[in-house]
Amino acid sequence: MTSANAQIRLAAHPVGLPQPSDWDYTEQPAPQPGPGEFLVRVEYLSLDPAMRSWISGRHTYIEPVALGDVMRAGGIGRIVASQHPDHQVGEIVSGRFGAQRYTLCRDGEVTKVDTALAPAPTHLAALGIAGLTAYFGLFDVGRLEPGQTVVVSGAAGAVGSIAGQIARITGCRVIGIAGGPAKCATLVDELGFDAAIDYKAGDVRARLREHAPDGVDLFFDNVGGAILDDVLTCLATGARVVISGAIAQYNATQQAPGPSNYLQLLTKRASMTGFVIFDYADRYPEAMTRLAEWISTGELVSFEHLVQGDIKDFPETLLTLFRGGNTGKLILALPQDQ
Amino acid sequence: MTSANAQIRLAAHPVGLPQPSDWDYTEQPAPQPGPGEFLVRVEYLSLDPAMRSWISGRHTYIEPVALGDVMRAGGIGRIVASQHPDHQVGEIVSGRFGAQRYTLCRDGEVTKVDTALAPAPTHLAALGIAGLTAYFGLFDVGRLEPGQTVVVSGAAGAVGSIAGQIARITGCRVIGIAGGPAKCATLVDELGFDAAIDYKAGDVRARLREHAPDGVDLFFDNVGGAILDDVLTCLATGARVVISGAIAQYNATQQAPGPSNYLQLLTKRASMTGFVIFDYADRYPEAMTRLAEWISTGELVSFEHLVQGDIKDFPETLLTLFRGGNTGKLILALPQDQ
Repeated sequence: MTSANAQIRLAAHPVGLPQPSDWDYTEQPAPQPGPGEFLVRVEYLSLDPAMRSWISGRHTYIEPVALGDVMRAGGIGRIVASQHPDHQVGEIVSGRFGAQRYTLCRDGEVTKVDTALAPAPTHLAALGIAGLTAYFGLFDVGRLEPGQTVVVSGAAGAVGSIAGQIARITGCRVIGIAGGPAKCATLVDELGFDAAIDYKAGDVRARLREHAPDGVDLFFDNVGGAILDDVLTCLATGARVVISGAIAQYNATQQAPGPSNYLQLLTKRASMTGFVIFDYADRYPEAMTRLAEWISTGELVSFEHLVQGDIKDFPETLLTLFRGGNTGKLILALPQDQ
Repeated sequence: MTSANAQIRLAAHPVGLPQPSDWDYTEQPAPQPGPGEFLVRVEYLSLDPAMRSWISGRHTYIEPVALGDVMRAGGIGRIVASQHPDHQVGEIVSGRFGAQRYTLCRDGEVTKVDTALAPAPTHLAALGIAGLTAYFGLFDVGRLEPGQTVVVSGAAGAVGSIAGQIARITGCRVIGIAGGPAKCATLVDELGFDAAIDYKAGDVRARLREHAPDGVDLFFDNVGGAILDDVLTCLATGARVVISGAIAQYNATQQAPGPSNYLQLLTKRASMTGFVIFDYADRYPEAMTRLAEWISTGELVSFEHLVQGDIKDFPETLLTLFRGGNTGKLILALPQDQ
């Protein structure tokens, strides 16, 4: 266990899109577990739009990552050394490991990953925070019911691709909004969406009226910006807008304009509600059970976009998210043979 | 009953603030009741911010007023002729009478006004749509509970002045936002608000942080615009923003900017919800009973801003609303001796 521990640390709070100079790459000897500790070698790292807010220097729903600290990131890894009786070498675990190759852990900091249920990366996707966000956002925040018309933005992304499928499984009509014909084809052909709207082709509003002539009952929004404003003009009476994220404006260098059509909420007796998935932690098992069932029956497809690389590729891989380069959950897959 | 029926009719859909040329003043003989009908002479007319949306030519939550039609308006009047067995001459009734001196009514189109409970104008204010809007907006949409911190915008207006008092009566800390030191003094000294913020004096956000250091649990918004954006930055976790109206932007000639701080809804697990009071019609009696109790004990003060005038003064009086010229419910009081 004398391997080097590669790490990505935050060097500066980005202005706009994160630049290479906003990060430091460091190496130090991997730590050794003391009594009650075990060492995890990280094999998969989750890349999430929310990371942009963590590195902004501002407190949002979570402490910001401090300058000089290892970047916060969820991951899955393998225990390679242990002085803990309940955690054996070879065990696969998930946790908030950070953008680094090795991390020392203690009890309560990891969750065992059942790779019999699904391959490890799926536990960062449909069975991870993305799946949980879709699940609680739809059912608890959005009060999803069979027969409703549901629109999902960022529909080819990690959360959106799961949200649309859950709505379909629940018996809803599902319209996805995504960028480009390839993503749209995937939504309809592979994930069973009823329709997909390519926002890059323009006139989202006209397409929405065509595909949801009676209005949108539930809008699961991962994007914000102009798409949110368009969907607000197409709400059904009593609609719920679930604010899951706003990837369109995370890198804005100026205050992004707000949804100027928000008064549609009044006309349509509608609501717009934000949520933070960590608030549902005590109910994760309930959601995991249902998500795993749907995966096992093949009703729910977990799309993972794996990028093979090393820790030093973390900053560049993160940008893929903001360029709309991923279909499904973006994951940095680290070597497993070292 | 050969009196002339003075009427204000919509001549054009206004652009920006309604102009005199947007209205026609007409006179015609007052109609005579046929069997089952009765004639109401209107004595009080309600003036409401929502009227601006009714004359926009766009369908919102209600049919727009058509060009050439008598302007829609709620009012209180006296029955001056009747061929209906249950409605006697001299009876005081309320209804959607329109901006006219006389109107023929049938069963179900009026509500008897109990002037023993409160004077007639109060039935257009605290005991009218304004009071009902405050009541259901706070309790049903806003889930008001004792001990919460409540902010009300347009706090010196018809709905706002009632909403703030109901929150106080319920045991909440209440901060009103209004325009000018006189209105602010009224809120604190006469209506028992805990604090008032004069938005014309600037820096609403700093004053909010001072008066609500632990955040705002419920924001009852009648105004929209910059004030909504300011309050969004001061929400407590789990806050509810109740969209009752947006008088700041009803006369905008361009699309008003939306609340650019709406992502605070996510960070604070908060909601923003619109409502239309007519949806609560079957529960009006419940609210009326409680509002009347509070008025009878003196806990709730109904502020009415009466403008004495004739039907032809309706267009000019309406503008008082948009100039912030009223404190409490704006009412056009017509002569009672003719």
